[in-house]
Amino acid sequence: MNSPTNSPDLAADVRTPAISAEQHKREEDLIEEVVASFDQTPDPRLKQLTQALTRHLHAFVREVRLTEAEWDQAIAFLTAAGDITDEHRQEFILLSDVFGISMQTVAMNNEAYANATEATVFGPFFVEDAPLIEIGGDIAGDAPGQPCWVEGSVKDTDGNPLAGARIEVWEADDDGFYDVQYTDGRVAGRAHLFADDEGNFSFWGLTPTPYPIPYDGPVGKLLLAVGRSPYRASHLHFMVSAPGTRTLVTHIFVKGDELLTRDSVFGVKESLIMKFEQQDASVPAPDGRDLAGADWARTRFDIVLAPAAAAATTAGAE
Amino acid sequence: MNSPTNSPDLAADVRTPAISAEQHKREEDLIEEVVASFDQTPDPRLKQLTQALTRHLHAFVREVRLTEAEWDQAIAFLTAAGDITDEHRQEFILLSDVFGISMQTVAMNNEAYANATEATVFGPFFVEDAPLIEIGGDIAGDAPGQPCWVEGSVKDTDGNPLAGARIEVWEADDDGFYDVQYTDGRVAGRAHLFADDEGNFSFWGLTPTPYPIPYDGPVGKLLLAVGRSPYRASHLHFMVSAPGTRTLVTHIFVKGDELLTRDSVFGVKESLIMKFEQQDASVPAPDGRDLAGADWARTRFDIVLAPAAAAATTAGAE
Repeated sequence: MNSPTNSPDLAADVRTPAISAEQHKREEDLIEEVVASFDQTPDPRLKQLTQALTRHLHAFVREVRLTEAEWDQAIAFLTAAGDITDEHRQEFILLSDVFGISMQTVAMNNEAYANATEATVFGPFFVEDAPLIEIGGDIAGDAPGQPCWVEGSVKDTDGNPLAGARIEVWEADDDGFYDVQYTDGRVAGRAHLFADDEGNFSFWGLTPTPYPIPYDGPVGKLLLAVGRSPYRASHLHFMVSAPGTRTLVTHIFVKGDELLTRDSVFGVKESLIMKFEQQDASVPAPDGRDLAGADWARTRFDIVLAPAAAAATTAGAE
Repeated sequence: MNSPTNSPDLAADVRTPAISAEQHKREEDLIEEVVASFDQTPDPRLKQLTQALTRHLHAFVREVRLTEAEWDQAIAFLTAAGDITDEHRQEFILLSDVFGISMQTVAMNNEAYANATEATVFGPFFVEDAPLIEIGGDIAGDAPGQPCWVEGSVKDTDGNPLAGARIEVWEADDDGFYDVQYTDGRVAGRAHLFADDEGNFSFWGLTPTPYPIPYDGPVGKLLLAVGRSPYRASHLHFMVSAPGTRTLVTHIFVKGDELLTRDSVFGVKESLIMKFEQQDASVPAPDGRDLAGADWARTRFDIVLAPAAAAATTAGAE
């Protein structure tokens, strides 16, 4: 064991007003009573989760000495989040996202392993059964945006090519929307392909552009109140899998994007920032494609998958 | 300052699997990134709340090493709570209740003060403008239940009577329902009255009986999964106010009720458990009321209100 995950700086941050010994005892006794109420939970994991949640929630409300008016506001916030949530909108996921809980869950379940590529948030816009394209094919469909040549390789942590690795890619269009956010049923900006025998791949996508997470609900109001932007740094999603390896869910980000340091969901990892090289229309495309006089971009993403055994701690995760 | 509220046994409860130094750093860095994202919050209290919530939420998910499947379940739980919540049903309050957060918020905002009567949860069933009754009057209306004579006094912490103190009382009927839970608009089992010049009061109510919190939603399912009962210990609600004092919101509980040790919302305080003495039908009522051959009960509740200054820490609370 390396070091405790329960950060000692928690205590350092406490600003507790003076309370009497009697008051202190009342509050502590209540916590023990709530913890004990879960003692008979048949499932040991559920017992652990509920008791730990109890201690951490009480530690929070006691540290800040939550007022009854603030408690009312918290209930109203959750109620508003419930109100706006439906089959097309998930405010509770946004809430988890903007507090970095989604990213922390990804980080914990995809532990650092040798030189394996880092994971980041999955996001709500992946769709099963995206179209199959050949190597060098185009994922854009009719999505508007600057054409972008993406190439790279898929290898294991020993440097062996992972021939035939499955690569799912998806992204928003130039207007900041994924195909599923339109109501016309279009399929665009997403596909899957397979790496060749040397583990190499390439495809045409769109140069990623920034877009905001939905901000017309309580999470958006919170971001406004705390002076944070709802924008996500520009990115292109990948999900990469091969037999014997840990499936990688990640993005690549665009070097130089001013949103890199303030991505609203904390998905950016230094190792995932790639150079997207702008190409003048006069530069011929790598595959000879006729770009009809438009400028384009190119990038490279070399992917390293951890062995499946490295996923041991993700038991229970999908 | 007496002792830190951030319980040191948090650390003792940690069962952290071994993680690498690199992994540890990734997780810690993410927390600092999220905390820093709130640095520019204009309102210092909102900044404190969001940063503290960030640290405690991350401490929780890291302590239990939350899996991605469990994160999915948490999102589904909150979504289901949102779905069942409407103007008549508040699942997020129930959630706060069964984790003792409602009671802890009450405890913190009504600090122990000398011999002042303890507060407990307000609950969702108080109604403004309940009928006025005279001292010795009946709050039951048409609510079914055993008649119960309730008498007592209202004093300050120096023992001075609080003449004319306002006393609101409300309770469920013998079937376990408050009047507002019926759809026929009835007003029953609630009233307000004023203490006399010596600070004394008395009224007829109903002997309290146990009832469950609504348990047909996700909170009920959680209670079932952890082996807890949704029942509340039998109780009678009071809200007592007088000029210069801290308004008291509390219940009295029934000595001998087997639910006292497992009240679903942790509202029971030893000091609030009262003897409800069963009286045979042959015993004359204190005010000569004709009980038509029915048995009845009686109890006494002597109330002590803290000075208004003791409410200083509740700034911002209603």
